[in-house]
Amino acid sequence: MLGLKLPTDPRWANIAEKNIEEILTDHAFCEQKAASTAISFIVTYPEETELVKEMGALAREEMSHFEMVHKEIRERGYNLGRERKDEYVQKITAFFPHEGDRMKRLVNRLLIAALIEARSCERFKVLSENIADKELAEFYRKLMVSEANHYTLFIKFARDYGNREEVDQKWQALLDYEAELMKNFGNKEYIHG
Amino acid sequence: MLGLKLPTDPRWANIAEKNIEEILTDHAFCEQKAASTAISFIVTYPEETELVKEMGALAREEMSHFEMVHKEIRERGYNLGRERKDEYVQKITAFFPHEGDRMKRLVNRLLIAALIEARSCERFKVLSENIADKELAEFYRKLMVSEANHYTLFIKFARDYGNREEVDQKWQALLDYEAELMKNFGNKEYIHG
Repeated sequence: MLGLKLPTDPRWANIAEKNIEEILTDHAFCEQKAASTAISFIVTYPEETELVKEMGALAREEMSHFEMVHKEIRERGYNLGRERKDEYVQKITAFFPHEGDRMKRLVNRLLIAALIEARSCERFKVLSENIADKELAEFYRKLMVSEANHYTLFIKFARDYGNREEVDQKWQALLDYEAELMKNFGNKEYIHG
Repeated sequence: MLGLKLPTDPRWANIAEKNIEEILTDHAFCEQKAASTAISFIVTYPEETELVKEMGALAREEMSHFEMVHKEIRERGYNLGRERKDEYVQKITAFFPHEGDRMKRLVNRLLIAALIEARSCERFKVLSENIADKELAEFYRKLMVSEANHYTLFIKFARDYGNREEVDQKWQALLDYEAELMKNFGNKEYIHG
């Protein structure tokens, strides 16, 4: 799915299903962080008009998703808990060395963002297919679609800003790294747990 | 207007009018920073359900304003320049000492946000009344209305979270400080210049 080389361990669905409150809180912060990431592309690359335009729209969309998740939290009588460290994102972000000119760093950041969107999308699919709560399952099915679009958007920009062949090679290497990493995940009640 | 004790020096309108590109770039980043501030309230006070709800909606709205300003920039053949330091915001933020319990700090941050919205609103009014470009003047007139609503929202939350009398006293002290500060502003091509 979306190029990912290792599907999520099915046991994760059970862990998630039993910890809906934690999943929802973690998910709300994933949306907030996605919005903050989009904003950071704008601040770092303001001269890239098309990128700024799309990242502005994306930040707004991610905040609307945040609001939707927060509504699900409230309706279930839960409270938005505190943000927790996202170990998966930390490890993924460390894949590319922090070097090279700024446009090369932009391509790397776009690929990282694409991967996080792809894996989030896959996790939403797992949730939508495994959660007993029909309304929440449908909620995740819908969100899955928009995350898939975001993945496509980031890949498109990475190819626009980099050499196509080089970008595709980098993407494959990142996918291999992620699949290896994923072997040790799938056991915690987080979206990327 | 909105409690502000010193109106903007009329000369600022002329400076702004002659530097529309700089004003638009600075304005776009004001909207982005307003969105980031709303997000930071969410991250710092996730347990405050009503605040989180409103800040989520506000961050989304500020990003839609960012998009609107970026559209004005593109349509005029300009490019979004780089973000510049906002000296006014830095000085305003320094008014309250960084101490007290976290709810007291929340009240202070809400008052600072209210003030920045109030002054931005006044500046938009000045622009709407002085810009020769009719379409842009109308654009600022409309934005002025939403900034006024944001000011009201922040004041409401400050009063909810603090002792009403104490909050009103703090607000007056902040307004006095700002009016004094404003005497040295009004001479640069920024929204808060």
